[in-house]
Amino acid sequence: MAMEVPSSTAPTRLARLFEPRGIAIAGASGDPTRAGGQALRALGAHGYRGGIFPVNPRYPELAGHRCHPDLASIDGECDLAVVALPAAQVPGIIRQCGRRGIPFAVVLGGGFREAGPEGARLEQDMLEAAHAHAVRIVGPNCLGLVNVHAGVYAAFGSITREPRLAAGGVSAVLQSGGFGNALVRQCAQAGVGFRHVVTTGNEADLTAAELIDAFVEDAQTRVILAYLEGVADGRTLMAAGRRALAAGKPVLVLKAGNTDQGRRAAASHTANLTGHYDVYRAAFRQCGMIEVGDIHEAADFALVLSAGRFPEGRNVALMGGSGGSAAVFADTADQVGLSIAPFVAETTAELEAALPPLASCGNPVDYGPGFPSPSSVQGYTRACKALLADPGIHQLGLLVASAGPGQVQLAAGELAQILPGTTKPVLAFSAMTDEPVPAGLAMLRQAGVPVLPSPRRVARAMAMLATYAEARTRASGAGWSAQGLYPTVVQPPIPPDALAALPRGPATLDEHAGKALLSSTGIPVSADVLLPIGSTGVDGLRYPVAVKIVSPDIAHKTEVGGVKLHVADAGQLAAAIREVTANARRARPAARLDGVLVSEMVTGVETIVGVVNDPGFGPVVAFGIGGIFAEAVDDMAFRVAPFGVDEARAMIGELRMRALFDGLRGQPPCSTEAIAAVLVQVSALAWQLRARLSELDINPLIAGPVHAVAADALVVLR
Amino acid sequence: MAMEVPSSTAPTRLARLFEPRGIAIAGASGDPTRAGGQALRALGAHGYRGGIFPVNPRYPELAGHRCHPDLASIDGECDLAVVALPAAQVPGIIRQCGRRGIPFAVVLGGGFREAGPEGARLEQDMLEAAHAHAVRIVGPNCLGLVNVHAGVYAAFGSITREPRLAAGGVSAVLQSGGFGNALVRQCAQAGVGFRHVVTTGNEADLTAAELIDAFVEDAQTRVILAYLEGVADGRTLMAAGRRALAAGKPVLVLKAGNTDQGRRAAASHTANLTGHYDVYRAAFRQCGMIEVGDIHEAADFALVLSAGRFPEGRNVALMGGSGGSAAVFADTADQVGLSIAPFVAETTAELEAALPPLASCGNPVDYGPGFPSPSSVQGYTRACKALLADPGIHQLGLLVASAGPGQVQLAAGELAQILPGTTKPVLAFSAMTDEPVPAGLAMLRQAGVPVLPSPRRVARAMAMLATYAEARTRASGAGWSAQGLYPTVVQPPIPPDALAALPRGPATLDEHAGKALLSSTGIPVSADVLLPIGSTGVDGLRYPVAVKIVSPDIAHKTEVGGVKLHVADAGQLAAAIREVTANARRARPAARLDGVLVSEMVTGVETIVGVVNDPGFGPVVAFGIGGIFAEAVDDMAFRVAPFGVDEARAMIGELRMRALFDGLRGQPPCSTEAIAAVLVQVSALAWQLRARLSELDINPLIAGPVHAVAADALVVLR
Repeated sequence: MAMEVPSSTAPTRLARLFEPRGIAIAGASGDPTRAGGQALRALGAHGYRGGIFPVNPRYPELAGHRCHPDLASIDGECDLAVVALPAAQVPGIIRQCGRRGIPFAVVLGGGFREAGPEGARLEQDMLEAAHAHAVRIVGPNCLGLVNVHAGVYAAFGSITREPRLAAGGVSAVLQSGGFGNALVRQCAQAGVGFRHVVTTGNEADLTAAELIDAFVEDAQTRVILAYLEGVADGRTLMAAGRRALAAGKPVLVLKAGNTDQGRRAAASHTANLTGHYDVYRAAFRQCGMIEVGDIHEAADFALVLSAGRFPEGRNVALMGGSGGSAAVFADTADQVGLSIAPFVAETTAELEAALPPLASCGNPVDYGPGFPSPSSVQGYTRACKALLADPGIHQLGLLVASAGPGQVQLAAGELAQILPGTTKPVLAFSAMTDEPVPAGLAMLRQAGVPVLPSPRRVARAMAMLATYAEARTRASGAGWSAQGLYPTVVQPPIPPDALAALPRGPATLDEHAGKALLSSTGIPVSADVLLPIGSTGVDGLRYPVAVKIVSPDIAHKTEVGGVKLHVADAGQLAAAIREVTANARRARPAARLDGVLVSEMVTGVETIVGVVNDPGFGPVVAFGIGGIFAEAVDDMAFRVAPFGVDEARAMIGELRMRALFDGLRGQPPCSTEAIAAVLVQVSALAWQLRARLSELDINPLIAGPVHAVAADALVVLR
Repeated sequence: MAMEVPSSTAPTRLARLFEPRGIAIAGASGDPTRAGGQALRALGAHGYRGGIFPVNPRYPELAGHRCHPDLASIDGECDLAVVALPAAQVPGIIRQCGRRGIPFAVVLGGGFREAGPEGARLEQDMLEAAHAHAVRIVGPNCLGLVNVHAGVYAAFGSITREPRLAAGGVSAVLQSGGFGNALVRQCAQAGVGFRHVVTTGNEADLTAAELIDAFVEDAQTRVILAYLEGVADGRTLMAAGRRALAAGKPVLVLKAGNTDQGRRAAASHTANLTGHYDVYRAAFRQCGMIEVGDIHEAADFALVLSAGRFPEGRNVALMGGSGGSAAVFADTADQVGLSIAPFVAETTAELEAALPPLASCGNPVDYGPGFPSPSSVQGYTRACKALLADPGIHQLGLLVASAGPGQVQLAAGELAQILPGTTKPVLAFSAMTDEPVPAGLAMLRQAGVPVLPSPRRVARAMAMLATYAEARTRASGAGWSAQGLYPTVVQPPIPPDALAALPRGPATLDEHAGKALLSSTGIPVSADVLLPIGSTGVDGLRYPVAVKIVSPDIAHKTEVGGVKLHVADAGQLAAAIREVTANARRARPAARLDGVLVSEMVTGVETIVGVVNDPGFGPVVAFGIGGIFAEAVDDMAFRVAPFGVDEARAMIGELRMRALFDGLRGQPPCSTEAIAAVLVQVSALAWQLRARLSELDINPLIAGPVHAVAADALVVLR
């Protein structure tokens, strides 16, 4: 079977959606409490320079513009219709768009899928009209879209209100209007400038993934911000994420609907599927999307990413006059995997020469109070340069803390000179965001130094930069298809003969057949012999062995007494065969018994590898430690299949119990490379069989010092 | 042995420190770059109304005040000396304070313990002078103290700079000047008003714990904020925390120096001991202190606690027009143990009558766009009242999100009427902290509704309120000594005869003696018989049994082959005795062998109970699951001894693997009450023996369906 190329949307061509030459407002109104009134007013208020065409047969004129009875009467160039009409009129207006040659519509109002069966029918009618006339739709049930740079406010409600957003390089796609606008406003208050802001509502046509794609293509978008509750097609989202990663445009995601209560709350307000959060997290990681925990973290990260500097490692230098801030930073650094690394000797010597006599010149550097002053500022410059020149340092954190305006302005002036000479990120912590310090802080920001209001938040932002830089490095080494949907380097691992041997139609492969399938892809399996029912044994085995009943009707053999482990010799073997057969007959009298499998016992750490078919993401590989203890802590790692060895290694590293692989209490360490190789191969197998595989379980995969061996397997085909 | 009453500091009498009738500035200066200049200027600038007495023999007058050659020359009432002099002059000035009858000094400068041996000697001299003359000292090596209400700025540096702190009910103790001031400034920017702010520097005399005590006694302090790196006497800190809890004054703690890198950074800037973070966390919990993760959380919590409303449970109602905000809230609610609970029927009926037709009247309540308006505001009021009247709802969250100023002001006006009629907390989320909405937000705050800028932060604050209210309830039921140092209800559990039987001086009790000690306190132990070396067995045993070598020289018996488990009958017993004896002789030829212990095997979940002697907190009990898997995840809970059954239950609940006690995979569930009883008794034993106990290990404590049985014990006395 050759690797299939999955269908994909064509590259988005949404430029006219964001830069329309003219905008019609269907349902325009003079009433500022109505959507059609707010949209009309917002277009006028924000300096949009294209044509504004109110459409409403009841008025000859609105807000100084000629009002049109219908879309057909518009005589200027018009690329976008803002639809502020009751749901029942929307399918008709979309048809009008098509006939008038208006390629885009933003449908603001609700009353569609989210409102029940009648609304769902209207949404379907609207979509059919859109498809028939090649009209692309944002919404319905949304606040609309904004192009801040061009003053395009195809929107109503809170998103159109003062204060006006500052223009900048961040474009946002938001699966909630109210919360999404709150997110954007908070970021703006922190100093983030925006390019496009799109609320997607029901996503009947244009999806979050397509809009991310459009932002990737938009030259003036540098950072992408997404609020997501769920997506119907996870692979398309990942593909958009990968393209953004390749283009060097970081994607920040705030994801909701991740817990039982969160899913219930999300389901009650939109029709978005939320799916399994572990799978989303894995998907975000795999395509380099950056998850943020809260609004202020989105703002922090957007500011820091907008500076456009990325580190080449996880070592940071700290300098400041506040030892407490360094301690607070360091705790977070420890948690997020940053290292406050030692300096090379040259750096320390420079610091000792540059800083005041009582300064502490290790990392973190503490120069004490009253520094820099106008007379000592050259020392400050010299110290900054030394830290940035240290080959073992990848980022610099300046702990300004509560230093006064004089010191901050002095430092900012110097840093403006220093930063062009380095590509390393420089971040600052200052708590003094009230006047009169902000003049200095603004200078720092101007110089390319993002300023955040806590040392912990500086540490988290630095860790985010390092992790994102790692994802970029990984991505540049991986070969992905043009659509970013699958890695081109994955070879279908099941050879043709093994593929041909699979049963047609729904089937459950027993352990013997399941292990044969795994073995055909190169995954080590425990040696076994399938004996007929009634057999008393077999020669040539290496004891101890495991004895298991084989039946297509018994998926969980242990539960029926169908497994005997640690069988030590030929005598015990005969007894064990009798026992598992009798137990199976007693527990499941109707089951077909195909034989008894005798397999060599493998020793090592018991792990579990599984494949599940996620409704949004398709085949997903799960990996964890076996046994009751791991079950008790729910210690599993997930990745969307297929993936390479880097991701497999990262899965192993995510397990809380990973120390078991190091060989605790005198056990030999396990080969995590052998485990990783199995995970990669399982992911490739799952991708190859994605049209047929319902479930695959390797339980256990025994991890030993050299190999990782599948000691049992269950494969369910559909 | 009778229960000892530990020595304790007398109740603090620091009123004159915070409200001095006059302040001397030793080392006063006209130079605003010097500490003595800044302190003098700050006192003048912030409206301090007492006497200001510059002391410097070089000037006749400073800043309009007569300048004194020495402290003795001051003729007005003077309760506080601000010392801005080189370290070498400080012991002398403290003696001058004593002679002049000045009871308090704030020593600003460094050059003491933190600067090396010579500084440590000066600090000792200073302390001896202080003790001899009954002078209490803040510092040295600090930014000083501030009483915002009275304009007392006995301080220099960033803490004295504009903008001025607003007066309010939060008092802060800060173990770092720069970071501490940053923390206070950020809280102030969020709207927190302050009472006292004290930076403690080296804490040579007055400690953070004593200052917390002073804040508890201060009528105008309502909330206490602490930045801590470490304390030398953890019990005193806990006692202060308990008194604060009893007084209804919440203590917020931001703790640093919790990780390897954090401890290194903290050690490099102060002499504070940081100790084991797990123990600090346990101690904070046990005395109801509220740990905050970051600066903004301190600000959030201070605002919310200042409102003075506390819930009676963990159920919350949400209402707003932003479904996305509810989803974001709900995810965090899930993580922090809040329940978005169903309403009683009356509430739902009221909501349906009060809210717009399309409103979603379950929890979370979503009233859709455009509500409330001036014409519908009565419905809003009715809905709020219904939610607050619901008996199953303990707090109300209003998801204002990005609603406009009109709606916010309408809501605020109504809430100002409603809140006096309920004791339940009401919190709001609004992202619109820029103009023009803040007029409405200020009204909300005025009405007693704290406003936070993210739904997640509202959820965390609500969970904090619930947890704090639970701690208050627990505390009101527990009997604590007047000093809050130990629970009065703990009876010394070791009976006099067992206590008398303990060896004098350093000793390691073997399993037999250790279990006898435990058993004397009522802790169930496995039945055992101690056989002499060379014995071949004993009658009357219930098999299977465990066989273990007994030697004062072999602490870890398994490692020398000194343990045989699952010994099934008399024949195996004789062989096992021979084997463990031979193994021990071979591994440790010099060890004294006292016999062989034969004990009944107990089945159940293996757990570990330990007691460690923490340098700052004394005896601490640790509890975890036994075995290699638990070791791999580091799954342990800690509590400072002694404690009651509530804390013991909470320890069990903290384990990640606690599901093991529920009886996974058909195992019978374990009695967690039996485990809790053992933990309580171990904690009482550890407290009773605190002067002698170096280490105690029950490994394993076997948890079964009815009992938890100590199957081995190691006790090390000093």
